[in-house]
Amino acid sequence: MTELPLPANATELERFILDSIPLSRAMQMQLAGYDGQRLTLRAPLAPNANDKGCAFGGSLASLMTLAGWSLVELKLREAGEDCDLFIGNSELRYLAPVWEAISAEAELTEDPDWTRFFATLAQRGRARATIACRVPGAQGAAAEMTARFVAKRRA
Amino acid sequence: MTELPLPANATELERFILDSIPLSRAMQMQLAGYDGQRLTLRAPLAPNANDKGCAFGGSLASLMTLAGWSLVELKLREAGEDCDLFIGNSELRYLAPVWEAISAEAELTEDPDWTRFFATLAQRGRARATIACRVPGAQGAAAEMTARFVAKRRA
Repeated sequence: MTELPLPANATELERFILDSIPLSRAMQMQLAGYDGQRLTLRAPLAPNANDKGCAFGGSLASLMTLAGWSLVELKLREAGEDCDLFIGNSELRYLAPVWEAISAEAELTEDPDWTRFFATLAQRGRARATIACRVPGAQGAAAEMTARFVAKRRA
Repeated sequence: MTELPLPANATELERFILDSIPLSRAMQMQLAGYDGQRLTLRAPLAPNANDKGCAFGGSLASLMTLAGWSLVELKLREAGEDCDLFIGNSELRYLAPVWEAISAEAELTEDPDWTRFFATLAQRGRARATIACRVPGAQGAAAEMTARFVAKRRA
């Protein structure tokens, strides 16, 4: 992924997550990229290693969950929506061990797209986004997650 | 779950995990129960909270993953098997927010049972166990995970 300067709202969100989610600090999470469609988080291996010295499955799951959540949260903030946003369910595949710093990239899947997502939110005060996350590895993805996030307008 | 004194092998495994997986220390994980069939991990809320003050989805995923891994690891050690054990895939459902200390309970599902699992391991040097985990909540499960773990005999 090309390293562009982070937009201000992404830098703000990184600060918000590090301030309010202790595990993100323990993982030494960084928001490494955001171009309006794809969001990338990173974390060094050492605080996220397992007994074998490669990345702990829980760290991969947590970083992908945070990446998906961050992407939807940023899109909501950009749209001026004040929502509670939580994960509903997810499927994960662990495909190869990760022996270096972890990246997790999140993108919206097509059904619904952002237009439909915000239309549903406007209409019902609640909408669901399906996010695909991947941890790149030496050969293709080292881990993949598909997750449904639910946004609910605050009362 | 009735609080019985922990068997020595469970206390040893708790020490091993805390020593070798930094995130388990950050989560302040405890091995709270093991009766040979069901294993329970616990973690306090504060280090595992999200921006809303309830349990972070990544912590729920990590604790359930560790619970499943710990159960299979203990069964392997009891059988004298020296294996690498890793998670292959999982499905998670987040059903209700968790506003207190997190418990994660892991049990084997029936297909295959432990007898069949160890027979396959003996025959092929590799076997797969499907583990069901749940985080109890105020009303039923607050989160559920089904995960496949793969054990491979070390060379």
